[in-house]
Amino acid sequence: MRLPLISLKQRSTAAGGALSNGYCMMPGTFSAEIFASQGFDCVTVDLQHGLIGSSEAIPMLQLLSRLDVTPLVRVPALNEGVIQQMLDAGALGVTCPMIETSEQAARLVEYAYYPPLGRRSFGPTLPLSQYGSEYLEQANSTIATFAMIETARGVENIEAITDIDGLTGIYLGTMDLAMSLGRPKAKLFEDEVLDAAVSTIVCHAKRRGLVVGLLASGTSLIRRSIDFGFNFITAATDIGAMRSDAERAVKDYRSAFVLSTQANEE
Amino acid sequence: MRLPLISLKQRSTAAGGALSNGYCMMPGTFSAEIFASQGFDCVTVDLQHGLIGSSEAIPMLQLLSRLDVTPLVRVPALNEGVIQQMLDAGALGVTCPMIETSEQAARLVEYAYYPPLGRRSFGPTLPLSQYGSEYLEQANSTIATFAMIETARGVENIEAITDIDGLTGIYLGTMDLAMSLGRPKAKLFEDEVLDAAVSTIVCHAKRRGLVVGLLASGTSLIRRSIDFGFNFITAATDIGAMRSDAERAVKDYRSAFVLSTQANEE
Amino acid sequence: MRLPLISLKQRSTAAGGALSNGYCMMPGTFSAEIFASQGFDCVTVDLQHGLIGSSEAIPMLQLLSRLDVTPLVRVPALNEGVIQQMLDAGALGVTCPMIETSEQAARLVEYAYYPPLGRRSFGPTLPLSQYGSEYLEQANSTIATFAMIETARGVENIEAITDIDGLTGIYLGTMDLAMSLGRPKAKLFEDEVLDAAVSTIVCHAKRRGLVVGLLASGTSLIRRSIDFGFNFITAATDIGAMRSDAERAVKDYRSAFVLSTQANEE
Amino acid sequence: MRLPLISLKQRSTAAGGALSNGYCMMPGTFSAEIFASQGFDCVTVDLQHGLIGSSEAIPMLQLLSRLDVTPLVRVPALNEGVIQQMLDAGALGVTCPMIETSEQAARLVEYAYYPPLGRRSFGPTLPLSQYGSEYLEQANSTIATFAMIETARGVENIEAITDIDGLTGIYLGTMDLAMSLGRPKAKLFEDEVLDAAVSTIVCHAKRRGLVVGLLASGTSLIRRSIDFGFNFITAATDIGAMRSDAERAVKDYRSAFVLSTQANEE
Amino acid sequence: MRLPLISLKQRSTAAGGALSNGYCMMPGTFSAEIFASQGFDCVTVDLQHGLIGSSEAIPMLQLLSRLDVTPLVRVPALNEGVIQQMLDAGALGVTCPMIETSEQAARLVEYAYYPPLGRRSFGPTLPLSQYGSEYLEQANSTIATFAMIETARGVENIEAITDIDGLTGIYLGTMDLAMSLGRPKAKLFEDEVLDAAVSTIVCHAKRRGLVVGLLASGTSLIRRSIDFGFNFITAATDIGAMRSDAERAVKDYRSAFVLSTQANEE
Amino acid sequence: MRLPLISLKQRSTAAGGALSNGYCMMPGTFSAEIFASQGFDCVTVDLQHGLIGSSEAIPMLQLLSRLDVTPLVRVPALNEGVIQQMLDAGALGVTCPMIETSEQAARLVEYAYYPPLGRRSFGPTLPLSQYGSEYLEQANSTIATFAMIETARGVENIEAITDIDGLTGIYLGTMDLAMSLGRPKAKLFEDEVLDAAVSTIVCHAKRRGLVVGLLASGTSLIRRSIDFGFNFITAATDIGAMRSDAERAVKDYRSAFVLSTQANEE
Repeated sequence: MRLPLISLKQRSTAAGGALSNGYCMMPGTFSAEIFASQGFDCVTVDLQHGLIGSSEAIPMLQLLSRLDVTPLVRVPALNEGVIQQMLDAGALGVTCPMIETSEQAARLVEYAYYPPLGRRSFGPTLPLSQYGSEYLEQANSTIATFAMIETARGVENIEAITDIDGLTGIYLGTMDLAMSLGRPKAKLFEDEVLDAAVSTIVCHAKRRGLVVGLLASGTSLIRRSIDFGFNFITAATDIGAMRSDAERAVKDYRSAFVLSTQANEE
Repeated sequence: MRLPLISLKQRSTAAGGALSNGYCMMPGTFSAEIFASQGFDCVTVDLQHGLIGSSEAIPMLQLLSRLDVTPLVRVPALNEGVIQQMLDAGALGVTCPMIETSEQAARLVEYAYYPPLGRRSFGPTLPLSQYGSEYLEQANSTIATFAMIETARGVENIEAITDIDGLTGIYLGTMDLAMSLGRPKAKLFEDEVLDAAVSTIVCHAKRRGLVVGLLASGTSLIRRSIDFGFNFITAATDIGAMRSDAERAVKDYRSAFVLSTQANEE
Repeated sequence: MRLPLISLKQRSTAAGGALSNGYCMMPGTFSAEIFASQGFDCVTVDLQHGLIGSSEAIPMLQLLSRLDVTPLVRVPALNEGVIQQMLDAGALGVTCPMIETSEQAARLVEYAYYPPLGRRSFGPTLPLSQYGSEYLEQANSTIATFAMIETARGVENIEAITDIDGLTGIYLGTMDLAMSLGRPKAKLFEDEVLDAAVSTIVCHAKRRGLVVGLLASGTSLIRRSIDFGFNFITAATDIGAMRSDAERAVKDYRSAFVLSTQANEE
Repeated sequence: MRLPLISLKQRSTAAGGALSNGYCMMPGTFSAEIFASQGFDCVTVDLQHGLIGSSEAIPMLQLLSRLDVTPLVRVPALNEGVIQQMLDAGALGVTCPMIETSEQAARLVEYAYYPPLGRRSFGPTLPLSQYGSEYLEQANSTIATFAMIETARGVENIEAITDIDGLTGIYLGTMDLAMSLGRPKAKLFEDEVLDAAVSTIVCHAKRRGLVVGLLASGTSLIRRSIDFGFNFITAATDIGAMRSDAERAVKDYRSAFVLSTQANEE
Repeated sequence: MRLPLISLKQRSTAAGGALSNGYCMMPGTFSAEIFASQGFDCVTVDLQHGLIGSSEAIPMLQLLSRLDVTPLVRVPALNEGVIQQMLDAGALGVTCPMIETSEQAARLVEYAYYPPLGRRSFGPTLPLSQYGSEYLEQANSTIATFAMIETARGVENIEAITDIDGLTGIYLGTMDLAMSLGRPKAKLFEDEVLDAAVSTIVCHAKRRGLVVGLLASGTSLIRRSIDFGFNFITAATDIGAMRSDAERAVKDYRSAFVLSTQANEE
Repeated sequence: MRLPLISLKQRSTAAGGALSNGYCMMPGTFSAEIFASQGFDCVTVDLQHGLIGSSEAIPMLQLLSRLDVTPLVRVPALNEGVIQQMLDAGALGVTCPMIETSEQAARLVEYAYYPPLGRRSFGPTLPLSQYGSEYLEQANSTIATFAMIETARGVENIEAITDIDGLTGIYLGTMDLAMSLGRPKAKLFEDEVLDAAVSTIVCHAKRRGLVVGLLASGTSLIRRSIDFGFNFITAATDIGAMRSDAERAVKDYRSAFVLSTQANEE
């Protein structure tokens, strides 16, 4: 049973021009399937702030490839070995943190694509089994690469970074960028300095037709993000979702217990 | 650093006479910590319907022992080896599914307690490190045992089951009981036959001063359960929480996207 | 993305009345995918003689569910906890070794099916995510149960065993049966005593319309098995396949080395 | 029980001047033992295109050390931490992909050997247990280092690369080299441009007495490789072997089924 | 490389008629190798009070088979599936806790040996690779079975238990036996009641030529045990060893720190 | 239950100005808890010479955070991704091997601290759950960074290295330093050349108020180290402890066996 090979851009087009994304930060295929099945267009296995090592990411990507989402990965750093192993495990996109220069963006492209675009080494064992020989011909046009911009230096170099051929998108590291700008408590759309930097990023990305993503939760913030130009929205993380609903459940219990006790006492 | 040895009953007293409980159904210490930290009084590692094997349950119980919750376990079946290994890994309570006779309830007690109450084999490697020698003296008075009643036969034998010395509580298997009663779609507090059976269970448990638990979510259902006599409420499961909040996040995204698109089109 | 719920019998019909089967004896989702993708109708995760524990079987079954094969499991023994956890992890069939009496066959059925047919406990977390609510209604008609007959005593009781309602098939344990009959070196279709016993098994299974399976490799033995009445053929195991082809590769190397050396010396 | 410390070169001499090699691409000690026991002189745990992380490679290397093969590793990239951990886990050789300059080859040597040859940090916990104090004295003369040449740039610098003191061998990345040369479909011994590049590599390696390896399967291709000067032949990978034999088994089944059905119909 | 197949009795003879034994209670092949390499005659992977599941025990047994010790296992309970999987993973002996009747001892024998002695199912994948076809012929004469006697009831039935054909030895559960006799604080060789029970056990075991084992640490206690008739001495557990030496190291540090501080202050 | 956030320096002050440290070199939370509970002030999970990968280090750090020790980590190399993931998993300190220049020391600081001191990316999922929002404000003042000096070059640059702002301490790599100085068999406090280099290191560290650590076992060597100026003493490793006590146990057994045999023969 060959899988169809669908790039992130094709999926975006099919979804009306924007993508909903979820972040898996917990290791395990079981939670990954439950989380990924809630309707996201694409799901990112997070090896940076998620507590997931390469060993656990592999079966997660393997499984996500079989669900109706595009499997993506965020790597811990600009590391050739990790990037290529995640691609060989079936990731169809890579987000790399802390890109600050066009040279770094170029290395991301170099690591993620086969010649002539890059220097990825050939050996896609799992994708070959998943997609068949179509993968060989279309890997370079299918795989997505995202450079995270999350420092003042990254913003300074945004024009050169977005000019790198082969890059698919920019992903905003909002909190890191705020810290780097010396405004650790700034929130998006509420701080002039931060917003100006973000605006610069979005403009240059748009100029080159790149996808632009960020983490944003809640209808209101998501809408402002889309209006601002973002078209790749990380609307939830697995641990955020679990934590928030569990917290609510405990509150429900406590209210019910108080109500019941009060009624009893009356 | 010795941990204080707190039984479920002591915790219940401290919490006003009832307990909030959460179910871990996903393997992994990371999700377990995040989930368990939301305020539950006790957390159950579920080896029955959770997709967790003994190997993964061990580090989860080891960690939960160090958080401010009572670590419990639900075993897949009335299996001496599994019950004792989970206790040796630090579980302070065991829930056993499908108890239908007093003989089965007696075996649960036999497996979970040291002589003279039971025949648990001595070798609590991890609890000794966690609680020190206090564990040796107080294991039998600390460890909780729950018999799940989830069949018509279990209800028939409820008097004899609750009479078993050493048993701490009854846990209701609502859906299984409904199926066993030939009413697969019945819901609690909405079906006379099911409610009558549950009432019988609760009465006999209360008569013997046992804890009575069930899964119930939402303030309203929890309150009805407490009013009905339940004092151990499983208010959330990790996967339920994750799924429900993630589903909401995707809806938020879709609403925002539609609103933004509509505004643009105008 | 809901999966279609296809029973083993439906798959057999689609395949012309017989099934090719492969056995996964090594833990790991990666090897499972590669092996399962070679064209088998159904794949069995072997927890008996395979060195696979429940913990590793879970992600393997989870993944196999998404490939175009029916995911089956062989459990180590007639153990309620293991059987039900494997079903909750997505297995659509269970093979149980060493069934010798109709009482044991009845327990297999009891463990594997929901009421009223059996007493499987409700909580199919993963299948619900995979198949949606269709699973609730069709689990009993979809799940397959195979009793292994592999002792003289099992043969003696074959009529009563095959009469058990709910049983889907019989799987022959050829080597164990030969040992039990006191003919440890006997081979199938070459030994009168063994063949007579197997014939009895097949006849009774056929009488009841049950599937009948065995391990048989090589075109000739497979054909004899089908002619004999078998319609479920385990044509390969992962380790058998790996071993046999690796052995051939080493021979290839040695031949080539000798040829090259001889040519050089001339 | 101390193990004898046998270098790859000693094993090559014992085997008549060339080595058969197998690649483990699947994680797991069980499959590793079965595969490695088929007669290879040396076995490589592949952390590059194999879906094996460091965590799984460690017990695999630990076990391979106890079988009658030389345990080798291919690392994902020129990464000091990974190379040294794999050596501390018992690898007696390291293959590093994408070596393009003598500076890179020198770093490989630096990472893999103790002073004065390199700067490997001292702490060989497992080899000390395996080989005793002999390891301290002979590690540098026992451990093998292979630079993979798989780009046009690597070929250009082959003289300088092979001149690096301490390097044991060259391993050809045939497919990557073909892609780098702009001839993605070229096959070895069938394409002038590719063959010329390979010839250059082999000549320079031979000039310095280095081992020269490649992946080649089938008697005929292996023989041509040996005749061409290669003396380290990767004759099989575990997944390749499993896939190829499983595919054959399914074909066997289908032939048998067709034959049987046709006979029946007649 | 075939391993020689050495039974525990052969090893005992070679060692002068008694055996030193170590217990692995922590999961992991790395610690298992370090621990097992200290000179024990045989090493037991403890799935009962050790926090080791079947999944982790498999690679441990696989590795121990390759070291110069006899690999044994203690199972959590009299469970056919677990016993047979551990044997298929290479254990050459099984210790089963809580044997109280001759019927239970007979089941242990039944599960551990091939027909005609028992009913172990055939499929020793790993031993076949380790020992070759010799295993088929000699498994029954090589594998050791130990019944743990650790209750008053077990002592009562000791004659019938030791009369069971095929049983290799008795292993004393000293602490459990003391508890069962109502003397929880009794120590061996210091309590008349306990010693009388142990004497009965040893006499009956000796009468049948069985091996008799126990846990005993320190030269003095080991010597008294040997003098008493024991010939299988568990002289250390991995966690006991680690704990005791680490405790000493902290004391060393504290003494040194105090001495240094005092000297400084003078 | 929020944990108090205690820096290594605070713990050192509380302990009288020096710290006892233990090294975890074996993967697994179980052994980590047993080992860490013996009284060390801080425990280091060793990803360099310990056979522990990132995946296993995460649950170990998660658990150590809940014990009464400061959880530290030694990374395999100066790798941003690994350092930040270990901090996100709860490590409160990082030891980095092979620091030879001030530029490398500055990169260590850059990777381990948030802006403005460094460029650590924000996302401390686990510490947020463990310490609450206090972590955000105090991470930079709590986290410790140790540069290992273990080469002649590192000694040459010790002044510039210790001048790097933000560095917490120096850790001596005694054996590597001896090898780098061309004196592979030199022992500390017994070799003039080695001692001179160490003296230089300690002086410069003290000048800047840095912590200075090393591995030293036995009261006498620890005392000499403290007198020499060291105030961070690795007094044991888990495998060293296990090995040394197990070796003693085997000796005990052998003495007892010989004594008993001799007595018997008389």
